[in-house]
Amino acid sequence: MAHADDVKVRVFSLNCWGVRYLSKKLPQRYSMIGELLCKGEHDIILLQEVWSEKDYLSMKKKLSSCHPHSHHFKSGVIGSGLAIFSKYRINDTFLYRYSLNGYPYMAHHGDWFGGKAVGLAVLNIGGLTANVYVTHLHAEYCRDKDSYLPHRVVQAWELQQFVRHTSAGADVVILAGDLNMHPQDLGNRLLRTSTGLRDSYTEAAKFDGNENGITLISDNPFTIKKELAPFEKGIRIDYILFKGSSKADVCCDFMSTTKGSVANHPFPYSDHEALTSELRLTVHNPTETDCGRKPGNQESATATVAELVDITTEARTEVKVGVHCAERMRYTAMRTGVMGLALLFLELAIAAVPWLALGTEQPFPRTSFYMLAALCSAILLTTALLYIFYTTELKSLQSAEEQMRLAVGGLQERLRGFPPQPGSLKRSPPEGLEPTAAFHPEE
Amino acid sequence: MAHADDVKVRVFSLNCWGVRYLSKKLPQRYSMIGELLCKGEHDIILLQEVWSEKDYLSMKKKLSSCHPHSHHFKSGVIGSGLAIFSKYRINDTFLYRYSLNGYPYMAHHGDWFGGKAVGLAVLNIGGLTANVYVTHLHAEYCRDKDSYLPHRVVQAWELQQFVRHTSAGADVVILAGDLNMHPQDLGNRLLRTSTGLRDSYTEAAKFDGNENGITLISDNPFTIKKELAPFEKGIRIDYILFKGSSKADVCCDFMSTTKGSVANHPFPYSDHEALTSELRLTVHNPTETDCGRKPGNQESATATVAELVDITTEARTEVKVGVHCAERMRYTAMRTGVMGLALLFLELAIAAVPWLALGTEQPFPRTSFYMLAALCSAILLTTALLYIFYTTELKSLQSAEEQMRLAVGGLQERLRGFPPQPGSLKRSPPEGLEPTAAFHPEE
Repeated sequence: MAHADDVKVRVFSLNCWGVRYLSKKLPQRYSMIGELLCKGEHDIILLQEVWSEKDYLSMKKKLSSCHPHSHHFKSGVIGSGLAIFSKYRINDTFLYRYSLNGYPYMAHHGDWFGGKAVGLAVLNIGGLTANVYVTHLHAEYCRDKDSYLPHRVVQAWELQQFVRHTSAGADVVILAGDLNMHPQDLGNRLLRTSTGLRDSYTEAAKFDGNENGITLISDNPFTIKKELAPFEKGIRIDYILFKGSSKADVCCDFMSTTKGSVANHPFPYSDHEALTSELRLTVHNPTETDCGRKPGNQESATATVAELVDITTEARTEVKVGVHCAERMRYTAMRTGVMGLALLFLELAIAAVPWLALGTEQPFPRTSFYMLAALCSAILLTTALLYIFYTTELKSLQSAEEQMRLAVGGLQERLRGFPPQPGSLKRSPPEGLEPTAAFHPEE
Repeated sequence: MAHADDVKVRVFSLNCWGVRYLSKKLPQRYSMIGELLCKGEHDIILLQEVWSEKDYLSMKKKLSSCHPHSHHFKSGVIGSGLAIFSKYRINDTFLYRYSLNGYPYMAHHGDWFGGKAVGLAVLNIGGLTANVYVTHLHAEYCRDKDSYLPHRVVQAWELQQFVRHTSAGADVVILAGDLNMHPQDLGNRLLRTSTGLRDSYTEAAKFDGNENGITLISDNPFTIKKELAPFEKGIRIDYILFKGSSKADVCCDFMSTTKGSVANHPFPYSDHEALTSELRLTVHNPTETDCGRKPGNQESATATVAELVDITTEARTEVKVGVHCAERMRYTAMRTGVMGLALLFLELAIAAVPWLALGTEQPFPRTSFYMLAALCSAILLTTALLYIFYTTELKSLQSAEEQMRLAVGGLQERLRGFPPQPGSLKRSPPEGLEPTAAFHPEE
């Protein structure tokens, strides 16, 4: 049931694949994207992989008349790649950089240099406070043997923490981006269950786009077919998620994706497909439940908390695997460093013999001496840097694991239905992992 | 006017100066701190510089009976040093690591390795949701020529962003820690004005402690007198801040600091003094205004916004200075790297001459050749790492500067009293830089 004073918000999301000099047809594709967006059909545009400041600025210029408000989130060595363009004024912004994001020496994957993060922009949409998040998680290069899984799980954990903690004052929450996770992947379940965010694709009243909503399709000439296997047609890893609040309901009237080819152009916008969701915002009236979820009952709330305990425990196990792996890598770095140091000492000792016993001939050819010394120094420096890096990685993994343990403890306490603490002033829903109505079993 | 159902919360904060093998009398001091805290006189204990996990665990064991809930925030190479012990259950935690925190090559200052951050613990205090923050900002080593000022200003900016965005759902907000800023320093004014947090020291009904509430005192045998000059008696850089909400009022009945010496012990707890605030939480009744601030009128609200514009502009100027400095440093690193590369090429060219013109004598003594090559390589590697580091620094500074620009724009818009946007559903206080009542000029 639509109301006269409903506000319709069209949200657009696209991973632009904007690596200068490496991404194919980049200038042409940016010009195509600009052409599409400057029609002004979208209210909020959330872009990922806009790595270059120059590309952002030229897009900003192009969209200045229809989307006067914009922000490019900067972080890491080459930036976060995240950008927002909006018809609504951006009142405030905030960036959270994930504590883990791959390895600097995996330069061919390049994620580490990208400073992956989640950006928040606070907009005022027709009197409602809307928290709009844009993010891009670490890529999955090999699904069968995914060495980045613990990093991505920690990113998903930090993402849900960031959204939960910063959205308490928001009337409307919108999150879009390239999550690099399939719909039922651990991190995705964790994000949706803990924040209460709903998926545009599954919630849309009407959908026009690729089968199963896939956003990385094999028909796209820029995608690498081998990487998509065993998913013949493609995978869904880009999302527009949303939720309302006690003040406003949000529902998705229509969702669409691009389908690879673009009319009148020889190639598509990017290696990912673009998503558009038409969201309808209605100021909440407790007597109406035409849009959004009905208030949850005690039973379903308990089920949700129990599910969250399971998912968080699963995530914790995954992170623990990462902890063991990081510990092993750190140990290897240390051991190699110690061996390099021992070799250096041995060399110096051998060289010192003729120096101490004057007259004895130098047993070392000079060239080998200097080359070996240089090699030892390089080993020492590299292992020292690696040791520091793995220590940081370990701290982040342990931190997430500990936070998950605390969260599971809190959730289990709730499941057991503990009585309120003594000295209670009055009953109120405890803050924590329960931002949505369905999460309040006591209410 | 005290109510029968008020809740009193005693908050304790101390920078423990817990650098293993470097801090003086550390085991003895930890044992003294444990002795003080295990009396159970404090409800929430917020510690900084608990760098070692082992020290945290032994403290946790000691306090397990009176403070069963605790968390050690991990980040960076050696951790954030932040810990919380609480009588109340910790429902949830979250850590935000500052994007800037000194330079890795300033190893003698050591801040970079500490992964400075702000930790959030969500507690349930008698039915009220309390967001408790603990933080430690970058130290000030030289007040006259403080090269870390832009970093500290960015940290203060990120701290206020984190507190504002995550505390919207909280009934009570408590922030404690070593801010490394004097009461009227830019970052401190920025934090207080933008979040509405109030200072225990200035608000306390009764105070017992050092003159002017100083927490780094010259009478303390561990402080370096030279560093305190020109502040003869000492400086106040540790704080316990708090604020209430529309649901609960908070006021500070009593505050105390330690005074250097400790009865029956030959030395104090730390180089910093410990702070204790006795806060009183009252569920808000709009008709009473005995505790907490009276609702602000339009005039004072406008004044606060205007003040915030000034402070943010001042901070922006400071960050711009940092941007110029980082640009210069990055340029220097690049230039040195190019010179190293040129030198390497020159050397190789000279060495190649006899190789090309067979029979010509090698003009280079081998030793010098290898040593020069090693030097060039070292220069190249170091400058490459520095270039990456300065680029990251630059991104963070630019990001903060851009966010400040956006925030100032939003505030100025509010000052001009713009009409609401067309299509407004209803009037509501726009989210943004206005978490306290005094910040809502439109209301």
